[in-house]
Parts: sequence; structure tokens; C-alpha cells
Amino acid sequence: MTELDIYEKQNFGNLSGIGSNPALLIVDFVNGFTDPNQFGGGNINDAINKTSELLKFSRLQKFPIAMTRVVYADNGSDNGIFCIKAPALSNLTESNPSSQIVEELSPIAGEYIVRKTQPSAFFGTNLVGWLTSKSVDTVLVTGCTTSGCVRASVIDSMSYNFRTVVVTDGVGDRAIGPHEANLFDMQQKYADLMSVDEIIKYF
Amino acid sequence: MTELDIYEKQNFGNLSGIGSNPALLIVDFVNGFTDPNQFGGGNINDAINKTSELLKFSRLQKFPIAMTRVVYADNGSDNGIFCIKAPALSNLTESNPSSQIVEELSPIAGEYIVRKTQPSAFFGTNLVGWLTSKSVDTVLVTGCTTSGCVRASVIDSMSYNFRTVVVTDGVGDRAIGPHEANLFDMQQKYADLMSVDEIIKYF
Amino acid sequence: MTELDIYEKQNFGNLSGIGSNPALLIVDFVNGFTDPNQFGGGNINDAINKTSELLKFSRLQKFPIAMTRVVYADNGSDNGIFCIKAPALSNLTESNPSSQIVEELSPIAGEYIVRKTQPSAFFGTNLVGWLTSKSVDTVLVTGCTTSGCVRASVIDSMSYNFRTVVVTDGVGDRAIGPHEANLFDMQQKYADLMSVDEIIKYF
Amino acid sequence: MTELDIYEKQNFGNLSGIGSNPALLIVDFVNGFTDPNQFGGGNINDAINKTSELLKFSRLQKFPIAMTRVVYADNGSDNGIFCIKAPALSNLTESNPSSQIVEELSPIAGEYIVRKTQPSAFFGTNLVGWLTSKSVDTVLVTGCTTSGCVRASVIDSMSYNFRTVVVTDGVGDRAIGPHEANLFDMQQKYADLMSVDEIIKYF
Repeated sequence: MTELDIYEKQNFGNLSGIGSNPALLIVDFVNGFTDPNQFGGGNINDAINKTSELLKFSRLQKFPIAMTRVVYADNGSDNGIFCIKAPALSNLTESNPSSQIVEELSPIAGEYIVRKTQPSAFFGTNLVGWLTSKSVDTVLVTGCTTSGCVRASVIDSMSYNFRTVVVTDGVGDRAIGPHEANLFDMQQKYADLMSVDEIIKYF
Repeated sequence: MTELDIYEKQNFGNLSGIGSNPALLIVDFVNGFTDPNQFGGGNINDAINKTSELLKFSRLQKFPIAMTRVVYADNGSDNGIFCIKAPALSNLTESNPSSQIVEELSPIAGEYIVRKTQPSAFFGTNLVGWLTSKSVDTVLVTGCTTSGCVRASVIDSMSYNFRTVVVTDGVGDRAIGPHEANLFDMQQKYADLMSVDEIIKYF
Repeated sequence: MTELDIYEKQNFGNLSGIGSNPALLIVDFVNGFTDPNQFGGGNINDAINKTSELLKFSRLQKFPIAMTRVVYADNGSDNGIFCIKAPALSNLTESNPSSQIVEELSPIAGEYIVRKTQPSAFFGTNLVGWLTSKSVDTVLVTGCTTSGCVRASVIDSMSYNFRTVVVTDGVGDRAIGPHEANLFDMQQKYADLMSVDEIIKYF
Repeated sequence: MTELDIYEKQNFGNLSGIGSNPALLIVDFVNGFTDPNQFGGGNINDAINKTSELLKFSRLQKFPIAMTRVVYADNGSDNGIFCIKAPALSNLTESNPSSQIVEELSPIAGEYIVRKTQPSAFFGTNLVGWLTSKSVDTVLVTGCTTSGCVRASVIDSMSYNFRTVVVTDGVGDRAIGPHEANLFDMQQKYADLMSVDEIIKYF
């Protein structure tokens, strides 16, 4: 019995679908995650390119759009366990070029920038209230890394009962094994998987 | 360059260590997760056996102990997206034998039972406040599944700045591939990995 | 300059209004809060009577309905600071008659019972996710006490960006001074005030 | 029977006390709350002076120190219901002088600045995780306004099971009636009341 067989037998992996008010959530596509000497590598740059397409489409469709950045205090006062596990995170301060959203995805008027210090876009932020204020029922997630902040954000999005879609070619990771493993977990338990083309066709 | 090399080069995977006030968190070791026709299988039963050792030790050491159960409302009023992805979850109601903690780990006086409906033991529960009330700084995590509720709980535990230890032989999963993949992710980014024997030796 | 003048000059007290998907939230109308020897007194029983009218109307209108109970663990394991400030709270366990919803407001199929241990109906519960799953944008709040769990729930409801209405004759308190003072604060900063009749007329 | 009698009869108002690791939390003492044409007035400036004494003492005692500011996005993307109730709030952007901490309390190295958009210092912030990382068990609260962001923060502090002390002469409000009414509510249900002098004598 394959792993997929086990999950099918236990009736995981059903579609949760798309509701009537989607938002686009772009996780941590900042300069530091495009540079393999910082947090980048793998298929992250490809995922930025595909996200750029979805961002243009979402703007035309007037979807609410939120983008996250990792931002720690200049004085290090909010560096916690995550900065012990991965010390370079603490360099991502407000004005560090590494913590700026990549140029290709520069936010425009009305788009919501979420500053966060933990993996999930929802943790210690006002994202859930912002989604409520826009009457959002579905969250389309792109960003990086699939095995890190995307996964954490997807768990919380589903836990708050948003229908959640992981955009398969809009999420990227520095290493492909964890990328694939986390897509599997998220599809089985938390979210639907759709490509950018499939999403554009759907609407 | 292997995946591990990439993470090492980017300086992930540092130890976060153990503080001075540990608690034991046992995630979802309930009857429904021991039965391969419900949510069980793989190495879950082995993990229960090892957790039983750690539970005895933790009681002797007077560690605060919390155990989670998945409990949905009898009338289905709180069934959300998670129950769409995995419909059998909604059977785990207060009095269903499947949602009772396994006999081997039966809670005793003073142990805290956390009822939850989402993957993380922290989501929609009072676990963080309970840990605060016990002055806990370190959370030792066992339970199932490694790729599901353990992973989600570990992300939140670290996000709240608890030093977090995943007990490698005290966590189990219905399928071994996801079990291993999630241990890798958690060690690199969120928690330390220690076996039951290593923990007992440490204290 | 009266207190109201100060608030008007600083431009507080604007209407936040009612959206298109209201829910009814009934806070802590359980037997222990009808008994002046436990937590009752003042205008609480009157507020229950008026809430009963609004509950019937809400059921006809098919509004999602949630009711909270205070429920502490039988073994006392989750008694925290709140139970130090007010020790009788810890008696409100699952099967204690004092923690059961008053007969006049008995929940029917599909209504969501929220068990909580803290003042706010949102704290350590899945209420926000439940409201999301129903696409709610407005929360009508009745219950008790105005100066306690109602106030705390209203702050959180507004903080999550729900349009929030405090039902003036559907909320009650053991003492009238704090009842009035808290209605003032909530109207100025967090919510609109409407009577049951005004709400029924509105829809 | 006075209101106080009712609360005494029902056994409210017990002391929750001070633990072994206190932190100082200063809520919203920013320039806009010192100006009666914005959000100021009443006894707020007096409370800032007393807080300055407690801040000096807390630095000598090496208590962890956190200060909050209200900060909304420059582009208004995160303005929610609170900004409908009180529209001037949306002016409090990152670089507006009104949202800067008053000079008298300027933070020094290691002190944690919490940016928030909602009443509670805990809502949508990482404050609870920061307190965990410092092993804090007691929160001493000063700031403004007593009937607004102080009250909301105190409810959450207690809900997370921190022993909470409202510093009576370190909290202020634009109007004295609500200031007094909220001190009463907080003492009865959530926190202990102590003056700056009493706190300094205690340690």
C-alpha cells in the first residue's frame, strides 16, 4: 500500500473548493529569499515569476491582496526561538534590502503589507481581521518557502475556516524534496492544489 | 549539494535547547488514531509505547502534563474546512470511544486535557495560557501524527517562543515518508529532536 | 465640558453599522448568572427575557447563532488567574446545573455552543473561525455581564473587524452602575447600541 | 446594598498577587494622547509623569519593558472598524509625530516596541510570545486610556494567565468617570490595583 493509498483509504484529500470572495496571499517573496546565499535557491525564482502573473490577474479581478515580509526589530528586542534556529533571520529588519518585497511584485495602493516574525502569516498579525473586513472566504496562497512559512500559513488559514488553495507553481522552496513533501501534506489535509493557469481558468 | 547541505549553508538547524521548566505535551493519542481503519497505522502504536515511558518519567519529575483530544460538537455545528478535507474527523465527538485518550496514557489528577478541532494544540484552545500559568519555558512534544497535528503544534509552540523538543520515537504517523519529511523540517526550523532515552538522560 | 462632550470633540462614537450577514452571540446566559447568590442579580433576568425575543426572531431570519458557557475542567487543571480573582467560577464545570444555558434560551439543532474559561467569547475558542465559516460580517451581542464577558467579547469582535452591535436591553449586569458605564465605553469606541425592537425593525 | 457589596457577596475582587518575574507594559503613551485636541486630556499627563518614575525603577530592577504604539499603514490598507468608530486613529502612521512615544519615556536598547492597531496590546501582536521568552509571570500595566487600550490589554493579560497589576496613578484617561469605572471593573475581575509607590515599596 503506498502512502497515497493509506490517505485515500482513510478518506483524506477531499476538495475544499473555492468560495465567492477570494483573496491572494503572497508569503515572504522578499529579496533575501531570492538569494541562495541567504534563504533562496531551488524553484523560488520560478514561483515569483508565476506569482507575478497571478498578481496581475488578481488586481484585474479586484481580489483583496496581502503580502508578508519578515521584519524584526532593529534593536533585536523581538528575536526569539526562530532566530536561534536560523540566526540570519534577525538581519531582516525594516530597512534591510533583504526584507523588501521583490521588485516584480511591488505592492500598489490598497494592498496590505503584513509584517511578521513567525512562520505563519497569521501569527502575531492582524491578517485574520483584515480578511474578515474584506468578507473573504477563500485564500489563494503563493510564496516561499513551501515547507516553511507557506505551510504554516496554510494550516492557520484552514484553521480559521478559510477555503485555502496552494498555488502549486506559485510556491517555491530552497530544496525540492521538502517542497514536494509539503505539497503532499497540505493537499491531503488542509488545502486544494491548483496551478496559476487552473486558477485563471476557474474565474 | 544535498538538501541538508543547503540548510547547513544557510545556517538552519541550530539547537534551541532545553530551559528550566519543561512540560510534556501529548498530541491526539486517542483510540481513533490507533486503528488503521480510522486514522491509525504506521509507527503510531510504537510511539504510544515510548510515550508511556516518557509520561511515567514526567510524572516523577513533576513536569506539567497536557494531552490533546480532537472533539467536535455532537450536533456538527463546529465542523469546518478540516472536516471537508477529512470527513471522518467529525465522528470524534465527546463520548465517541475513538476520541478517548488511549488507556495506556490515561490522564491522572491535575493533568490538563485540551479539546481541539484544528491541527494545532494551541489553536482555539487555552494551552498557551495554561503553559504560562505553570511558568513553562520548554515543551516536549509527543503524539500523532508527525505530519499533521504534531507539526502544527510544534510550529505554534516555537512561535510562542517556547523551546520545543520533538520526541523522535514518541511521535508517529500513519505513513513513514511524511513522518521522516516532517522530522527534517521541524529540526531545521522549529525544534530540537531528541529520543525518549536522550531526554531521560538529560534530566 | 461633559464626558460626552470630550468624546464628541475627539470624534469618537461614530456608527459602525450593520453589514449583510449578521450572527447572534449570546454570552453566558447560564443558570449561575440568574442567581444573585452566585453571579446574578440586577437586570440580568430582564435581559434574558428580551434576548428570548431576539433569539426567536434570529431563528426565523436564519441568522447563525452562538451561545457561550463558562466551563472549567472537573479536575480544576485549567483554573487560572480568573479563578483567583473570583473563585466561584471554578464551580462552573461541564455538568454543573449552574453552567447550563437557561431553559428559556435552550439551543436547538445547528446552534453553536462555545465553552470558554476567560471573559471573551473569542479567547481560547474557535468562535472567530466559526463566524468565518458562516461568512458573518456583523455580530449582535446579548448576554451577561455587560461589564464583564460582554465587554470583553465586544472588544474582540470589533478587533477582528466584525461590525458589532450591543443589544442594550439584551445585556445585563449584577450592578447597574458598571452596566451603564460599560455601555458608554462600548458605544464610544467599539460598537453600536440598539434595542431588540430597533434591531427587529431594522431587518 | 452598594455595588461593592454585591461584588463582595459574590466573592469577586480577590488579590491575584505578584509573581517572581514581572514586566512593565506601557500602553499608548504617544504624543497624540497628550494633546486634548487629538486623544488626550484628563489625567493622562500626570500618569505619564508617574510612569516615568516606574520606568526608571524598572530599568534598575532589570524588568523586561514593552511599550505600545498605535500604528496604521500609510496607505490605509489596515483601517478597520476601530477607525470607523474613531476616524482620527487612522492618522497614527509610522512617521506621524502623534504616534511616537512621548519623549519622557523614550525607549532604550533592548526595550520592545509593540505596534498595534486594536485596543489590546496583545491583539495581532507578538507580545505574549515576547513575555514567554522572558519567562514573565506578572505584568505591571501603565498607559492610556484606562477605559480603552489599558482595559483591553489587562483583560488579555489576565486571560493568558499573567498576574496583572494596574498601576493606579500610572494609567490615565481623557475623562475621569470612565477612568474610575474601569479601575473598579478591573480590580473586581482581572487585576490588582497598586500605586507606583506601593510597587516600588513591594520590590
